[in-house]
Amino acid sequence: MSDVKKVVLAYSGGLDTSVILKWLQDTYQCEVITFTADIGQGEELEPARTKALKFGIKPENIFIDDLREEFVRDFVFPMFRANAIYEGEYLLGTSIARPLIAKRQIEIAKQVNADAVSHGATGKGNDQVRFELGYYTLNPNIRIIAPWREWDLLSREKLLAYAEKAGIEVDMKHKQGGAPYSMDANLLHISYEGRHLEDPNAEAEESMWRWTVSPEKAPDTPEYIDLEYERGDIVAINGIKLSPAQVLTKLNELGGKHGIGRLDLVENRYVGMKSRGCYETPGGTIMLKGHRAIESITLDREVAHLKDDLMPRYASLVYNGYWWSPERKALQVLIDHTQQFVNGFVRLKLYKGNVYTVSRDSKDSLFDKTIATFDDDGGAYNQADAGGFIKLNALRMRIGTKAGR
Amino acid sequence: MSDVKKVVLAYSGGLDTSVILKWLQDTYQCEVITFTADIGQGEELEPARTKALKFGIKPENIFIDDLREEFVRDFVFPMFRANAIYEGEYLLGTSIARPLIAKRQIEIAKQVNADAVSHGATGKGNDQVRFELGYYTLNPNIRIIAPWREWDLLSREKLLAYAEKAGIEVDMKHKQGGAPYSMDANLLHISYEGRHLEDPNAEAEESMWRWTVSPEKAPDTPEYIDLEYERGDIVAINGIKLSPAQVLTKLNELGGKHGIGRLDLVENRYVGMKSRGCYETPGGTIMLKGHRAIESITLDREVAHLKDDLMPRYASLVYNGYWWSPERKALQVLIDHTQQFVNGFVRLKLYKGNVYTVSRDSKDSLFDKTIATFDDDGGAYNQADAGGFIKLNALRMRIGTKAGR
Amino acid sequence: MSDVKKVVLAYSGGLDTSVILKWLQDTYQCEVITFTADIGQGEELEPARTKALKFGIKPENIFIDDLREEFVRDFVFPMFRANAIYEGEYLLGTSIARPLIAKRQIEIAKQVNADAVSHGATGKGNDQVRFELGYYTLNPNIRIIAPWREWDLLSREKLLAYAEKAGIEVDMKHKQGGAPYSMDANLLHISYEGRHLEDPNAEAEESMWRWTVSPEKAPDTPEYIDLEYERGDIVAINGIKLSPAQVLTKLNELGGKHGIGRLDLVENRYVGMKSRGCYETPGGTIMLKGHRAIESITLDREVAHLKDDLMPRYASLVYNGYWWSPERKALQVLIDHTQQFVNGFVRLKLYKGNVYTVSRDSKDSLFDKTIATFDDDGGAYNQADAGGFIKLNALRMRIGTKAGR
Amino acid sequence: MSDVKKVVLAYSGGLDTSVILKWLQDTYQCEVITFTADIGQGEELEPARTKALKFGIKPENIFIDDLREEFVRDFVFPMFRANAIYEGEYLLGTSIARPLIAKRQIEIAKQVNADAVSHGATGKGNDQVRFELGYYTLNPNIRIIAPWREWDLLSREKLLAYAEKAGIEVDMKHKQGGAPYSMDANLLHISYEGRHLEDPNAEAEESMWRWTVSPEKAPDTPEYIDLEYERGDIVAINGIKLSPAQVLTKLNELGGKHGIGRLDLVENRYVGMKSRGCYETPGGTIMLKGHRAIESITLDREVAHLKDDLMPRYASLVYNGYWWSPERKALQVLIDHTQQFVNGFVRLKLYKGNVYTVSRDSKDSLFDKTIATFDDDGGAYNQADAGGFIKLNALRMRIGTKAGR
Repeated sequence: MSDVKKVVLAYSGGLDTSVILKWLQDTYQCEVITFTADIGQGEELEPARTKALKFGIKPENIFIDDLREEFVRDFVFPMFRANAIYEGEYLLGTSIARPLIAKRQIEIAKQVNADAVSHGATGKGNDQVRFELGYYTLNPNIRIIAPWREWDLLSREKLLAYAEKAGIEVDMKHKQGGAPYSMDANLLHISYEGRHLEDPNAEAEESMWRWTVSPEKAPDTPEYIDLEYERGDIVAINGIKLSPAQVLTKLNELGGKHGIGRLDLVENRYVGMKSRGCYETPGGTIMLKGHRAIESITLDREVAHLKDDLMPRYASLVYNGYWWSPERKALQVLIDHTQQFVNGFVRLKLYKGNVYTVSRDSKDSLFDKTIATFDDDGGAYNQADAGGFIKLNALRMRIGTKAGR
Repeated sequence: MSDVKKVVLAYSGGLDTSVILKWLQDTYQCEVITFTADIGQGEELEPARTKALKFGIKPENIFIDDLREEFVRDFVFPMFRANAIYEGEYLLGTSIARPLIAKRQIEIAKQVNADAVSHGATGKGNDQVRFELGYYTLNPNIRIIAPWREWDLLSREKLLAYAEKAGIEVDMKHKQGGAPYSMDANLLHISYEGRHLEDPNAEAEESMWRWTVSPEKAPDTPEYIDLEYERGDIVAINGIKLSPAQVLTKLNELGGKHGIGRLDLVENRYVGMKSRGCYETPGGTIMLKGHRAIESITLDREVAHLKDDLMPRYASLVYNGYWWSPERKALQVLIDHTQQFVNGFVRLKLYKGNVYTVSRDSKDSLFDKTIATFDDDGGAYNQADAGGFIKLNALRMRIGTKAGR
Repeated sequence: MSDVKKVVLAYSGGLDTSVILKWLQDTYQCEVITFTADIGQGEELEPARTKALKFGIKPENIFIDDLREEFVRDFVFPMFRANAIYEGEYLLGTSIARPLIAKRQIEIAKQVNADAVSHGATGKGNDQVRFELGYYTLNPNIRIIAPWREWDLLSREKLLAYAEKAGIEVDMKHKQGGAPYSMDANLLHISYEGRHLEDPNAEAEESMWRWTVSPEKAPDTPEYIDLEYERGDIVAINGIKLSPAQVLTKLNELGGKHGIGRLDLVENRYVGMKSRGCYETPGGTIMLKGHRAIESITLDREVAHLKDDLMPRYASLVYNGYWWSPERKALQVLIDHTQQFVNGFVRLKLYKGNVYTVSRDSKDSLFDKTIATFDDDGGAYNQADAGGFIKLNALRMRIGTKAGR
Repeated sequence: MSDVKKVVLAYSGGLDTSVILKWLQDTYQCEVITFTADIGQGEELEPARTKALKFGIKPENIFIDDLREEFVRDFVFPMFRANAIYEGEYLLGTSIARPLIAKRQIEIAKQVNADAVSHGATGKGNDQVRFELGYYTLNPNIRIIAPWREWDLLSREKLLAYAEKAGIEVDMKHKQGGAPYSMDANLLHISYEGRHLEDPNAEAEESMWRWTVSPEKAPDTPEYIDLEYERGDIVAINGIKLSPAQVLTKLNELGGKHGIGRLDLVENRYVGMKSRGCYETPGGTIMLKGHRAIESITLDREVAHLKDDLMPRYASLVYNGYWWSPERKALQVLIDHTQQFVNGFVRLKLYKGNVYTVSRDSKDSLFDKTIATFDDDGGAYNQADAGGFIKLNALRMRIGTKAGR
């Protein structure tokens, strides 16, 4: 296996990817380049550098990037323009971060002339697919090393033994049975899987949730917020202009404070099995509500319905890892086109887990009060027209009934 | 216009339909049959009889029916099997009641040998379409009288003047400017439109809401409920078997108590304009969450996705009044087929406006713990398979990139 | 009705629109502007001018435009990029011409400051909808006069009587019972409806067809043609660069010669009834085949499937008259985006009604011979990958069967 | 590998599956059960028995079944009810036979208590997927042996060497470079792939085609045929009642005689690459045309459009091998429901490669002549209704234009 010379590893600095780092060195005798990204997961990144250095990684082979703005601007925002929800409930928090990491890994691989990339996702999950479809699409000739599908460290015990032998520091909690949940976090959400949650009939423990207070402990007073939209994206909160990452950071803060965005779900993985996950998406939950509200007055009906019809397909593409596919891009072109008039203001009320739309306004509004009114409209709409409208729409069914249907 | 001999009027007993009753007698010199249905709107029906008698309607021409069980069993439940939501948010509470009323009116028309039917819906709204598509489909030769599209009583003043002249009792509130909102209620929901709400940028007044307490005033303690499903329908709550109407009544009670199911929406009407409506759907909001949860463990992934892809179309059909259309029926056949294994139990937590799924269980569950587990699965799933899965799924994109895409 | 001052009439110069011209003058006492377009219908346009002058139309109010290039470039070609077929068979020849005529009429109305437009389509057909949705969308305040829905000349006899009284020249054939078919022609097709064809169980007469020879009389020798595509459009035939209208003219000539593009169909009109039509679309039939062929080697699979999934919706929009709608435009944006690599060459064989694809080639081809080959591929594709691919795709169904499905 | 005891092999008696038979015996030391089906491929099956016996297969382990009626009744006919076409052109001839073979293999495996099944499809094609998704779905615990993905006989030379060593008779043509094409035949079609066809820019040789005469050599006189439909299926041709397999056999004869059903295609395989195939589907081509024609007068418009919208999805499911999936079954339930009124008669004209619909008739026809007529309809349809119909449909677009869109 000495054919691999340089490998770019998506490295968090945690136990698993540290073991992978060592295993790559041991198994492939290759140079490892570590790549650690800040996508808003809320962890210090410098410890990853320190650890990488301990493994003998050369300083110039340690990449630590702050990708938060790019993440929200080029991935989260475009996805929310589509109102994407997977299986009726999931806001795709994990799914949307993977394409960016894959992209950056391939960029680094090119820069350092690496011939391989590696990641820490298991062979049972969706993330391996999301990473690798990205890798392959962005560089069809790249070599991919997926340790979880290759090695024999499939049990926790073996992994810990390997770590110990390799001199990798293991936290107390890991020794005592590991973290209770498999978690993933980025600026859009934090997710929990595994352990206790593997029984879909068992309620999640309150202590599990990290980003939101429980609705029970949220403030007793509602809070109103004002969102300003330009072309489908939030550009200001409460009148203050913010960058994309600032928008999501602020909404996470607001949502977390008010206990917004908790979800307990059984979902269908792309690799074929059902799995149970819990998610906290405080800012994203607010964004979805707000976006629906601004679209409700600025989008034409049939354009909105076209988007709704395509949404599940778009969401599945993102969930399944096809961000870089030509079909996702084609859908995005349509979606982005529809957002040109999605400008204006939405006021939301946040209260103990709830997000309510209370008002919306836009210079591009298609809400026509003179026509909508129940009062006299001065002839803006001729009620008699409805008779013909109904009769022609009924015609085929009348013929059908007459024919004995 | 003396060609109409007998007309069956959907009669609520309220001011508007009373004026219509009199107007029909005056204008068409015809016999009027009144039909008043209990679909759970929460109003006394006997006053409608008294009023009808005052207008000289013969006792045998006054029909008062309790349709609550039929409404939930044959209309609400089938619709919820589809997880139907219009435009991302609206649970179709008004839409789903119209086809039943139309059906019963046509039945009565046949029974009394009437040649026409009439309703009190305006020429600007969706309800006229829903009523009339039903009438025409169920009896292609029926004559339809839609007074709001025919008469000249389009202003409130003219209507009240007509009422007064006809000796129709007018409530104080109507004299003083009318009820603040145009409302519609049935066992699934209550809706509010008009007046104050005609400005989408104005927040709805707290005093408007009737069926739910405000989340702020809901109990400080969460309540857990257990729903039992058979073939996609709820058959028991907290272990107690209930009929369809009992189920919805109970869930409305629970939802109302916990401030669940309020919605403030700008929607796109089938007749072409946007309109702003507020809705309370306490039981329905709980039902949607519960149904998603039981489906999450009992439906195959691709069947679930097929349903999700078809859902917006189904919802639009219901919204637009095509309940009796052959295409709605064809979709229903598919949807009902998918529900054969949607059996089991869901536990929900209700708290101040929120409905959370906390657990779900089913003898027909497709959740396979041995495969889903992050622990050693004893070979139930071969992680190496994922490599081939990814490589073939990536193949077309690799070829694309190599070709310079 | 003296409120109409100037009306722009879509004027063919034929009997029906001549009667309309006179009727507009008589009924509305208004100034009539005639608009006659050459969209390839194959008729002289100058007689329309002569006739208009006879009706007293001022020379500056007679508009005769050659719209053939615009028609093919901006309407026919974009539609063929979508592979649009209505109800599995109809190539939308009539539908696609209406939006252009509507557009030009509204432009002229603006130029001459007219307050109304008028057309000769009947109240039973699709064309009135196509014209008027265009008019209303392009000028929401325009007044539309649809004589067939207003006047009392609904029988042929009354129309002829009116014509005679007005001194309009009536052909012998009209006097003797009218032309056998209602026809519509443009550069894309000619259609036949009515009379004999109103019985869907009667075969169309051979003498009806005008643009194509019967396959029986077509040449006994096949003819090969080479089409060159750029971004989904044909830019050259047999190596000779041609403009859009030249392309379609040439293909009509080739198709007509070889008896290609005859269709006998019962279709569903937007206004609610079924109707039987016969169509000749010689060039269009060739174009569809060629476009499918060039896409087959240049489009990614999932992009092609996305297009196929959206095609019926797109075709219905065109058929129903929604060319100028925001949803058609949104779909077009997606479709046009997909055509960026649809470049290359297709060779077709034409023979007695048939169009066969015999070869295709492109510098943007995604056909990868090294992978597709049944011979040894030198490792380009690892057959073992397919095992994992199948196993993961089968997983959910295996779980289903184990669960007793 | 001695863990396999009994394997049911899909055995054609040809060279490839004979080598596989021997290889299974050699490699797995297991008992082989041969299964040979008559699905209308037009070959003698008894030679397969003789050959199997030579390999030492016990007589009771040789299964030869005539599945033609089941094939057409339960697979071909249901698929044609959907008007299924893959990628705009392919009638799915190969795809539809695989699920039946898989089903029968699994039945035999159960009967003889075999623990494995095997097939001769390569690791590059779709057929492996179609077979194996069937196997796994019908028996989730079955062991599958796919020799082409396991062995090292990937080149023609190695295969022939193995055959020779095993004493397997090799035809002259194979020795001289093999059959020119990889072929697959059943009652629905015959397909050609490989060799010469691997260059999509090379025309197929006339000598390749086997089931149809060339259109050039087809009769100079057209032939008319009458098809009778019941619930979407053909039950009689020219007035003679026929079983499903008889129907297809007869239509193949007619189509073959008239040069109908040739197709040259580049298609997208499920495993990720494009491939070029040529197909002859004489009877199927006639069936599709006839089914569209009978549906055109018996299906409601929106039901027909719903079917058209779902068709590409259905076709992909069949193409990709998901016949036994719950989602294909769910779609089939809908499709079959729509066929209840698809009864009646269609007359087609066959001539030199063309199939023309010339007339159609049904007691369940929805064609309403009194409404469709251009002549006076006696008030069956009120043209004035169209005005209101158009105005309401235009409303949202008028509002849009007024808003500056």
